[in-house]
Amino acid sequence: MLSDIEICRETKLQSITSIATSMGLLEDEFQSQGKFKAKISLSSVKRLADSSSGKLVLVTAITPTPLGEGKTVTTIGLSQGLKKIGQSVVACIRQPSMGPVFGVKGGAAGGGYSQVAPMDELNLHLTGDIHAVTAAHNLASAAIDARIYHEQRKGYANFEARTGLTALKIDSKNVVWKRVLDHNDRALRMVTVGRNETNKTINGFEREDGFDISAASELMAILALATDLKDLRARIGRIVVAYNIHGDPVTSEELQVAGAMAVSMKDAIEPTLMQTLEGVPTLIHAGPFANIAHGNSSIIADNIANKLADFTVTEGGFGSDMGFEKACNIKAQASGKAPDCAVIVATLRGLKANSGLYDLKPGQAIPDTIFDADSEALTAGFKNLKWHINNVNKYGVPAVVAINRFPQDSDDELQQLKEMVEALPSNVEVEISEGFSQGGAGTIALAQKVIKQCSNEVEFQPLYKMEQALEEKLMAVAECGYGAKGVTMSYKATQQLAQFKKDGYDNLAVCLAKSPLSISTDGSIKGAPSGFDVPIRELKLCAGAGFVYALCGNVMTMPGLPDKPAFMNLDLDDEGNIIGLS
Amino acid sequence: MLSDIEICRETKLQSITSIATSMGLLEDEFQSQGKFKAKISLSSVKRLADSSSGKLVLVTAITPTPLGEGKTVTTIGLSQGLKKIGQSVVACIRQPSMGPVFGVKGGAAGGGYSQVAPMDELNLHLTGDIHAVTAAHNLASAAIDARIYHEQRKGYANFEARTGLTALKIDSKNVVWKRVLDHNDRALRMVTVGRNETNKTINGFEREDGFDISAASELMAILALATDLKDLRARIGRIVVAYNIHGDPVTSEELQVAGAMAVSMKDAIEPTLMQTLEGVPTLIHAGPFANIAHGNSSIIADNIANKLADFTVTEGGFGSDMGFEKACNIKAQASGKAPDCAVIVATLRGLKANSGLYDLKPGQAIPDTIFDADSEALTAGFKNLKWHINNVNKYGVPAVVAINRFPQDSDDELQQLKEMVEALPSNVEVEISEGFSQGGAGTIALAQKVIKQCSNEVEFQPLYKMEQALEEKLMAVAECGYGAKGVTMSYKATQQLAQFKKDGYDNLAVCLAKSPLSISTDGSIKGAPSGFDVPIRELKLCAGAGFVYALCGNVMTMPGLPDKPAFMNLDLDDEGNIIGLS
Repeated sequence: MLSDIEICRETKLQSITSIATSMGLLEDEFQSQGKFKAKISLSSVKRLADSSSGKLVLVTAITPTPLGEGKTVTTIGLSQGLKKIGQSVVACIRQPSMGPVFGVKGGAAGGGYSQVAPMDELNLHLTGDIHAVTAAHNLASAAIDARIYHEQRKGYANFEARTGLTALKIDSKNVVWKRVLDHNDRALRMVTVGRNETNKTINGFEREDGFDISAASELMAILALATDLKDLRARIGRIVVAYNIHGDPVTSEELQVAGAMAVSMKDAIEPTLMQTLEGVPTLIHAGPFANIAHGNSSIIADNIANKLADFTVTEGGFGSDMGFEKACNIKAQASGKAPDCAVIVATLRGLKANSGLYDLKPGQAIPDTIFDADSEALTAGFKNLKWHINNVNKYGVPAVVAINRFPQDSDDELQQLKEMVEALPSNVEVEISEGFSQGGAGTIALAQKVIKQCSNEVEFQPLYKMEQALEEKLMAVAECGYGAKGVTMSYKATQQLAQFKKDGYDNLAVCLAKSPLSISTDGSIKGAPSGFDVPIRELKLCAGAGFVYALCGNVMTMPGLPDKPAFMNLDLDDEGNIIGLS
Repeated sequence: MLSDIEICRETKLQSITSIATSMGLLEDEFQSQGKFKAKISLSSVKRLADSSSGKLVLVTAITPTPLGEGKTVTTIGLSQGLKKIGQSVVACIRQPSMGPVFGVKGGAAGGGYSQVAPMDELNLHLTGDIHAVTAAHNLASAAIDARIYHEQRKGYANFEARTGLTALKIDSKNVVWKRVLDHNDRALRMVTVGRNETNKTINGFEREDGFDISAASELMAILALATDLKDLRARIGRIVVAYNIHGDPVTSEELQVAGAMAVSMKDAIEPTLMQTLEGVPTLIHAGPFANIAHGNSSIIADNIANKLADFTVTEGGFGSDMGFEKACNIKAQASGKAPDCAVIVATLRGLKANSGLYDLKPGQAIPDTIFDADSEALTAGFKNLKWHINNVNKYGVPAVVAINRFPQDSDDELQQLKEMVEALPSNVEVEISEGFSQGGAGTIALAQKVIKQCSNEVEFQPLYKMEQALEEKLMAVAECGYGAKGVTMSYKATQQLAQFKKDGYDNLAVCLAKSPLSISTDGSIKGAPSGFDVPIRELKLCAGAGFVYALCGNVMTMPGLPDKPAFMNLDLDDEGNIIGLS
């Protein structure tokens, strides 16, 4: 079989203008960016406000291996399958981060014959939204350090007299807005900034800081959750960037940088339209990393898709404890639109990896032997899939299991897994999905089951209500969302919780960051663990995004590069084409 | 008069397709990026290789105030004037950096009725080239720290056995590739990276590092100097990122990241086409900061413009000691195309600031009194203009002085300045330029003088030849290019020079970084200083760009934000339009 980029390059694509008009956008509602990308104007959202909404299909997965189990392949494949049987459909996915593209996982365009195209443009820069988030984020960071510098250099009174501004008196030991870059760069996790050659302060005042990956920026969550440009601007203004020497929050509005940040993100708020290899319109918006971020595609993109198509297929990153949980508790509560059906992607490889019978090490290759027939491992790992089916049902969302077929998979084992799901008492459908090798033709049966499940009445149940106390909401996610025994909080987190409640932020949602490689917070525990605690080591206020972010276990918000990173394979050939991208 | 962004918004622009085709590009040689921007394919360079070349007009300036004296206004105004009198013309400018846009200077789109439009798109993100440079640069940085981490964590032998790669044995105290961001962020000038909570090494090994502004990245110079994608790829591979424990250079090729860096810059190598308010095609390419970088627009953009138009108007940042010097000694020697005429922008304000009679402090506003009639200050500051005229003539390039009129300027003083230039014995033309207030109609006389000077035979004389020794080339720029007494070198610079010569880099060009606010390396010395030394405190090898970079005096490669930064004025209005951008 050809490589992803070869398949992509051999496929004749439609012009993006024809994709845009065929999905029902008016000529002044999009601007082409080259032949195969377009930015969609928010005027379309306004025009379509009163149209009826289609069905929202949310693709989630079992607990994945570090390579992923093909959620985007299934999202794109299913959308192509729906199109093949005559349905109107739009796919909504998140913009890939360049960290994994250059790191270990590779791109996030799907794969095989179920790709968003051109996959190289999707995986690299796209229309610059992540760069805009990075730029806006780091502008605020520069603004914070500059303000501390200018206020402290000659004292607050001198600063006020000189500038006519009120001193913000930021406590340089209590700046909570870090910096970001869209790279896997572990050396930037903890840095000291403002260092000087001598004891001068020409470079500012030294303080501890760190970089997160851009997808984990609060601005990325704001981009995903904002309903329009005004809402984006208002949310940015509410961001708490630091505390002053009296312990009171300082916002980006007070720093007078919120307007400029919104200006920097003015184009990023427009979703990018592309197409799948079979011509399904696909909106790309907001960022990935549902482990350390909200990690769902945007409400704006969903809104456009929902109004224009009968089916919107979108995805939430990692297992249903991760992106799906956040899609239901954060995104659906913000948008008022719940998923009509969940597709749970399972693979033989991923379930065997969940058996606990393989010695899989993070950062190391998965042994090829995992593709050999191993009924014992499959049966042992099946409890993970069962857990995710029950989890999805808990929210009142009907489910379809999509068994994403890998080329190495045997018919026998696929059939075995299918029968195991069929034997479950739950109201769940199951189908083998061959989107990777066959495109939409390989997902027609899956598409039919999705349509069937979408016809059910959904009694959507998020795990918590906003008016509950923050600690109750954290417990709701830990206990109902992960099946944990309870929550333990570090001293630091306890203090932060008290601060947020005192400052009036008790009514925000909660966004838990944890390892995606386990339902628990310990990535080495596979299967369907129970009886564990969720240790919260730190909280972060994201008042603009509208949630409190909890760092659980040893989760990192800046990934690292492995010892043989994917970038080593990347190059340009003699004609200037990209090679080695997957 | 309306603000820049208001003028820009009121002007009816042509579609970029019509601009592109009218300048002679074929339909498959450009891709529109929205209505008013297009990326130009390098296939156009190939097609036009055998066409005859037009005249290259290089706009430079007197020693400017920190606000700039209107070099871009003059570049755009002159190109519009040339168009008005029936000439075929293309302007080539550099992409503005967001650092100054959010800092103090504002955008770099020109101003008034001589702007590149839409100015907000030009000043913010554009088509993402600077972001691509930033991303490619920081990918190499992450690759360096990751390699150090993986090689040192369990020892070189273990690394080699584990990966099959040869250990590079990078000396973590001798990494010469810093990180970059496109912001004014003084706190990032000196940072410690790889810090850890405890004495673990989970975040890598602690080392001293720092961030430069992205325009100062060697990759930006490579983008400006590369002749095609293959050349770009080869140059990237030659970059020396660090030295190993034996003191030998380690390149990005050896780090196996050069291919991925080139992939990341694949689209950035295509110039962006925009238009002036009067419809002159304008190519935007590469970055600014001719003080701390090469700082000229690209050879590729010039090549396209030169083949398609009779006149290409481009600019080199700051005074003729800065961008013009680098345009002649680095860029023209690399491209083989020398400027046919130089336009020296002078202002009454700028010359008075050069008189030494005003107490101007960097980072503080220029007093309005500088616009009052002050013949004494003008006469005293005139020596700076005289210096720049002589300097330009030294290269054998005919000159035209463009007196860029500010709204506050009086006819009398403008006339006085004009007569002072006319009285000079040099073969120099002079004209008042009213591009800001009148657009092309205000630069017709200037355009005619430029055409006249372009008809002269140019006997172009760079200050040095590549085969000279590095120290001779440094002295040539210091002595002939600045009029210095000589060069003094720090111990560190002396050692670096010896290392570069030992490693075979003696035949590179030299690129001096210094204050742009003086002809000397001390920004507080105005006028036409002489008898000074050029103190070189540090050298940097830019083997990919093809020069050795010398840091002179106290020049900084990462600017800082002032106490009332320009970002405070920026916001979105109720319709989502940008306000406060200049």
